[in-house]
Amino acid sequence: MDFTLDPRLEADTLPVGDLPLSRVLLMNAARFPWLVLVPRRAAATGLGDLSREEAATLMGELRIAAQVLRELARPDRIDVACLAADDTMLHWHVVGRFVSDPAWPGPIAGSSPGTPYPPHAAAALIDRAAALFAEARE
Amino acid sequence: MDFTLDPRLEADTLPVGDLPLSRVLLMNAARFPWLVLVPRRAAATGLGDLSREEAATLMGELRIAAQVLRELARPDRIDVACLAADDTMLHWHVVGRFVSDPAWPGPIAGSSPGTPYPPHAAAALIDRAAALFAEARE
Repeated sequence: MDFTLDPRLEADTLPVGDLPLSRVLLMNAARFPWLVLVPRRAAATGLGDLSREEAATLMGELRIAAQVLRELARPDRIDVACLAADDTMLHWHVVGRFVSDPAWPGPIAGSSPGTPYPPHAAAALIDRAAALFAEARE
Repeated sequence: MDFTLDPRLEADTLPVGDLPLSRVLLMNAARFPWLVLVPRRAAATGLGDLSREEAATLMGELRIAAQVLRELARPDRIDVACLAADDTMLHWHVVGRFVSDPAWPGPIAGSSPGTPYPPHAAAALIDRAAALFAEARE
């Protein structure tokens, strides 16, 4: 399938893999365990641009991503958000939040990604996340 | 069905009506056209607490709410978010955003609701929103 990731998303993230509909990215931001799901429909900017079936698939993939994040990072809660101001191709943030995190209880979306992961830590996290996605069932 | 809205949600909102799964509320905040969808599953705090079928229904209701908001307020973009820090029963924000709005391009979730609607304006908005929900198809 012909799909090119928006360069702004590519610049801030590291690839984890593909689910049936969505590309899964790890936000390269060490402060938060933060996945981004991008339905591989380059022309979609809003939920209304997906078909009903695609939207239901996306919901399942968001649930799987939240489950993977819970196993990966044991967060206290999880933010799930699709934010208008990003103004790029449709993508969803799934972010593990800790009562102890620097932005709690405020939202983190809109804050800059901040410090990237050290490369060895990113590689380990991505391997672990990919393994969890491979095992996950909605 | 036995369902009681969390008093913190009730305090900030006005009721619009019920969809098959979710209660629809209008955030009583004049700065933004802002709906809140609360699946009538009082014990749910995260997406993983809904069944797969309920989650798919919720996705359809979020799409309908976004469509209603587009017709109601003609926003430039729409935020859809379920935020951890709210720390109450599962609820989703659907917020119309304008390039001209006071928080653009930042997130508005986390900002205080601010000035409520004048009562006559709230009543008119709710009537119009309820009519649009009644007509809406996913």
